[in-house]
Amino acid sequence: MVGMSGAYGGHSNGGESRAPKAAVVVGAPPPEMEMEMAGAMGVVHKVAAQPAQSTASKMKGKVKETFFPDDPFRSFKGQPLRAQWVMAARYLFPVLEWLPGYSLSLFKSDLVAGLTIASLAIPQGISYAKLANLPPIIGLYSSFVPPLVYAVLGSSRDLAVGPVSIASLIMGSMLRQAVSPSAEPMLFLQLAFTSTFFAGLVQASLGILRLGFIIDFLSKATLVGFMAGAAIIVSLQQLKALLGIVHFTTQMGIVPVMASVFQHTNETILMGACFLVLLLTARHVSIRWPRFFWISACAPLASVIVSTLLVFLFKAQNHGISIIGSLKCGLNRPSWDKLLFDPTYLGLTMKTGLVTGIISLTEGVAVGRTFASLKDYQVDGNKEMMAIGLMNIVGSCTSCYVTTGAFSRSAVNHNAGCKTAMSNVVMALTVMVTLLFLMPLFVYTPNVVLGAIIIAAVIGLIDLPAAYNIWKMDKMDFLVCLCAFAGVIFISVQEGLAIAVGISIFRVLMQITRPRMMIQGNIKGTDIYRNLHQYKEAQRVPGFLILTVEAPINFANTNYLNERTKRWIEDESSSGNKQTELRVVILDLSAVPAIDTSGIAFLIDLKKSTEKHGLELVLVNPTGEVMEKIQRANDAHDHFRPDCLYLTTGEAIASLSGFAKMATP
Amino acid sequence: MVGMSGAYGGHSNGGESRAPKAAVVVGAPPPEMEMEMAGAMGVVHKVAAQPAQSTASKMKGKVKETFFPDDPFRSFKGQPLRAQWVMAARYLFPVLEWLPGYSLSLFKSDLVAGLTIASLAIPQGISYAKLANLPPIIGLYSSFVPPLVYAVLGSSRDLAVGPVSIASLIMGSMLRQAVSPSAEPMLFLQLAFTSTFFAGLVQASLGILRLGFIIDFLSKATLVGFMAGAAIIVSLQQLKALLGIVHFTTQMGIVPVMASVFQHTNETILMGACFLVLLLTARHVSIRWPRFFWISACAPLASVIVSTLLVFLFKAQNHGISIIGSLKCGLNRPSWDKLLFDPTYLGLTMKTGLVTGIISLTEGVAVGRTFASLKDYQVDGNKEMMAIGLMNIVGSCTSCYVTTGAFSRSAVNHNAGCKTAMSNVVMALTVMVTLLFLMPLFVYTPNVVLGAIIIAAVIGLIDLPAAYNIWKMDKMDFLVCLCAFAGVIFISVQEGLAIAVGISIFRVLMQITRPRMMIQGNIKGTDIYRNLHQYKEAQRVPGFLILTVEAPINFANTNYLNERTKRWIEDESSSGNKQTELRVVILDLSAVPAIDTSGIAFLIDLKKSTEKHGLELVLVNPTGEVMEKIQRANDAHDHFRPDCLYLTTGEAIASLSGFAKMATP
Repeated sequence: MVGMSGAYGGHSNGGESRAPKAAVVVGAPPPEMEMEMAGAMGVVHKVAAQPAQSTASKMKGKVKETFFPDDPFRSFKGQPLRAQWVMAARYLFPVLEWLPGYSLSLFKSDLVAGLTIASLAIPQGISYAKLANLPPIIGLYSSFVPPLVYAVLGSSRDLAVGPVSIASLIMGSMLRQAVSPSAEPMLFLQLAFTSTFFAGLVQASLGILRLGFIIDFLSKATLVGFMAGAAIIVSLQQLKALLGIVHFTTQMGIVPVMASVFQHTNETILMGACFLVLLLTARHVSIRWPRFFWISACAPLASVIVSTLLVFLFKAQNHGISIIGSLKCGLNRPSWDKLLFDPTYLGLTMKTGLVTGIISLTEGVAVGRTFASLKDYQVDGNKEMMAIGLMNIVGSCTSCYVTTGAFSRSAVNHNAGCKTAMSNVVMALTVMVTLLFLMPLFVYTPNVVLGAIIIAAVIGLIDLPAAYNIWKMDKMDFLVCLCAFAGVIFISVQEGLAIAVGISIFRVLMQITRPRMMIQGNIKGTDIYRNLHQYKEAQRVPGFLILTVEAPINFANTNYLNERTKRWIEDESSSGNKQTELRVVILDLSAVPAIDTSGIAFLIDLKKSTEKHGLELVLVNPTGEVMEKIQRANDAHDHFRPDCLYLTTGEAIASLSGFAKMATP
Repeated sequence: MVGMSGAYGGHSNGGESRAPKAAVVVGAPPPEMEMEMAGAMGVVHKVAAQPAQSTASKMKGKVKETFFPDDPFRSFKGQPLRAQWVMAARYLFPVLEWLPGYSLSLFKSDLVAGLTIASLAIPQGISYAKLANLPPIIGLYSSFVPPLVYAVLGSSRDLAVGPVSIASLIMGSMLRQAVSPSAEPMLFLQLAFTSTFFAGLVQASLGILRLGFIIDFLSKATLVGFMAGAAIIVSLQQLKALLGIVHFTTQMGIVPVMASVFQHTNETILMGACFLVLLLTARHVSIRWPRFFWISACAPLASVIVSTLLVFLFKAQNHGISIIGSLKCGLNRPSWDKLLFDPTYLGLTMKTGLVTGIISLTEGVAVGRTFASLKDYQVDGNKEMMAIGLMNIVGSCTSCYVTTGAFSRSAVNHNAGCKTAMSNVVMALTVMVTLLFLMPLFVYTPNVVLGAIIIAAVIGLIDLPAAYNIWKMDKMDFLVCLCAFAGVIFISVQEGLAIAVGISIFRVLMQITRPRMMIQGNIKGTDIYRNLHQYKEAQRVPGFLILTVEAPINFANTNYLNERTKRWIEDESSSGNKQTELRVVILDLSAVPAIDTSGIAFLIDLKKSTEKHGLELVLVNPTGEVMEKIQRANDAHDHFRPDCLYLTTGEAIASLSGFAKMATP
């Protein structure tokens, strides 16, 4: 009969249902049922307080949820010390997890995937370095050391590491504001390495301090807008190489870029257009038929080889086609002596490091998470940050600029069937061979084909379906997306990003400042109380005003809640006739996760002002933290006695409409 | 029987209660009850979507709630045009509301109150002007014009307008950083007027643009800490006058101030100490026995008179006691020609105007609200802002510096029995008489007594009980309070404030970033599901994992929710034996007021990953906006079919545990 008592105990329908209920009681229920009902109708469940906890232990819990939501060490518990050491080593160096069980069949897969991404990484490395206004060879250096570091430290199996377009663009454009890459190439290079060092430092710190949630503030909408804007800026910039324009504007705005484009034309345009069409076609084929992914993966390298051959055979460099020129053979040289901590440029490099660090981290972590969820394994965001950060710190000391996990290359890696981070090692070794022996082959590579490769790569960043989806889903999100897009295109990369993040946060704050407050009604024939606006079948309970708040009650919204509540009470009091006169205000706190001192002051104030109007204020279902603070407020003055705290709206109404008393004489 | 069907329809207890329920059905219920039960047990209430609304009308609703939460024009509706004009005039000039019905008896009350606050306003005006490094007469000017303006525009009946200590302190210390008040007194005065103009502009703009909620971000905790810190800084600064120290440090930090104090001693100290003790005793008496409030109200003026007489009689000015010196008779001179919009100082005056404007607005609006709630009338925050703003704009053109409603003076006004804003007029006229005829009397007023008046006034700003209350209530709030306090004392007034506001906002953001997520259980014998941690009597339902989220689901927390949910599911899946094996994950969305595109992506991702683990994901009670977006997500791919949306946890469990099917064969 336990179940029955619940059915009645939890139930009431305001005033209307008294008669039929009484009829049932008078009717012929089984004897034990009668007892239960009589008991249950009077039963009002107590609101429990959270078990007492010291401030320290509460703090500990909060810190744990904030910084260790994934509880990385939970598997350590109850293990012998030796096992804990092994686990710690595996935690720090994920390579230890997969290397001992590595097999030839796994290596075969990784070899194919590694060679495929290498064919993509070499032309992209050269291109992206040029995008960052750096010598092309830096792009190859950056595809050699960082992947090796990541293979040891990274926990993703699919991430293909190397330079990426957005970070290259941001670094190039931020540093160029202070130093000209053509006038002072050495200083520019030093600043690039120093910025990379700071980027790595920021990334590793975020990981070590477990502040990974900071990158969460770059919402999907922000990123979609930002990426599209950056892609357009990059593409327009690349028109320089593509159209063979020499004196191109270095400004980032869309207006000067367009003006510069229309001032020039050149014969190189034919070559650029051909290869761009080739690359875009390859991309289209790979999207249309995913099993031909290798077409777009190999297209850039094929373009480089074909175009280099063409230039070499026709001596096209003498006909106005600009070429890369001679590149020195040899591996990365140490560059820690090139890190420049001069106060003149410290601010610039730190800022550049912060922005590129966070942007590249966002891309890297998002890519890692995406493929982990596809293959159903876990990637620890904070550990990834440490890995990417260390990779960049090491990179900055070995002539590399900022690198991360690139989306396009990782997708190719995944499609090519990579199994472990060994594919990165294969890629790095391929790049090494290139660096040692094949550099002379790039002498005749025309710059125009690099521009085409960049444009073909960044076109993929313009995600129109995602933007359309955001528009359909949430107009405010779309506004954020649009602001990021417009900000990047018309103002600057950093400011566009800052504006979009600012709007996202402001929107969250507005949700707190103006929380939803709703009037609830009873869904006829049930014990359920729901929002009147949403549920047309819900009906007002005469004499009761049932309000819900759906936000933490704190300093930012108490004034609003106060005004809003009083207006409702006023409207109710003035409209009602004698019979339906408002008697009780029920405040359902189910959806209030937290309350602060201002919030408690609001509740006390509301209690007093309702009493002044001859109304009763009742609180329903305060959650643990809220209940705790209500009790503490009671310690001083007994504002909220147990008889104005109820577990459910139904019980509150049953009890207050005098129903319980009538049923249990 | 409507009530009955609800009792059963809304009910279920997971698996445990099947047997007893079946027994009841088999038992001897009245015939109509059997039918109802059979029907009701199968009934599952549909989750309704919000009625369709265009984006424009939704936007309109949001804008209305954001900017017009008090709906100021609702009484206008349905009125004839003439009445609307009258109401609009009354809205803009609240004086029209009370002046037509003003009577002699009301005036008697206002006269007493006005004279009382004038006796407080005159010495405080002189003192606070000195606190702002301005000539003392500016303080009297500021107690003449602004109260008259406020009497016409203000809607509070208790607010006593004039200079206040905190705003004076902030203005003095911010402007002194750029210009020395002793070296360039004229420039300093110009900057003060210009800052006042900007303060008024900021205040009026906040009111007109209805951005009043911005001052809500100064939480109670912030203000308590800030006020206490400022009071200590002010008191220490006043030791200069009190101890008769001439070469005092102008720095605001506690360390240089203390160092300066201990370097000097002087005979003036005796006089200062005596009057300080007198004033503090008067204050104590008034707090202890509220009906003697007039003692502390008149004490400052009495001190000024007595000390002036003492100096005059004993020629004490020749014995090293510094006096105010001669003040010119006459009313405020126009000062609009003194407003300085020179680019050199524009940044400084705008910043000073912004900070003093917001701080003084916060005090004014809070005071107005406090007394309005005591006397049970409404004060419109945005209208108050316009009134205070206009008052300061007019003030800046008539030789006044920044003014607002002062807490101490308004309390005296209230206690003295003021009825309308007429008491401000009486006060202004009294000040006018003083300015016209009584200025020579202040020649011998010693500066030391002004210092004592300031200290006695600001001591009241250190609200230890409030701080203790905050400590007891909420440790994080106390931290905010402490940061504001320490920031003001050890760094600077503006930065201390900025730090405290920053922490408050960060805390709100953290609540979103790490929302509370709870496992619910069934309270035995009822249909109620509550947090397991809070309700010890709640029990897990075998096979079900019932999770609640208590925050909007958005970009800032989807990663966290994802990790947290997956960890719980993993823990559950690994621990369960065959019988209690996890089958269904119920996500209760009752407390989720909003969701964005990232949030929807999280739900879809969770749905897919639970399916991959052979689990069913069920959503319970999505609110209007959330339901709307779920439906829109369904338009593209049918992720959430109606059979995984339930109105209550009870119905979801009843339906999914196969109970409904068993009961209705």
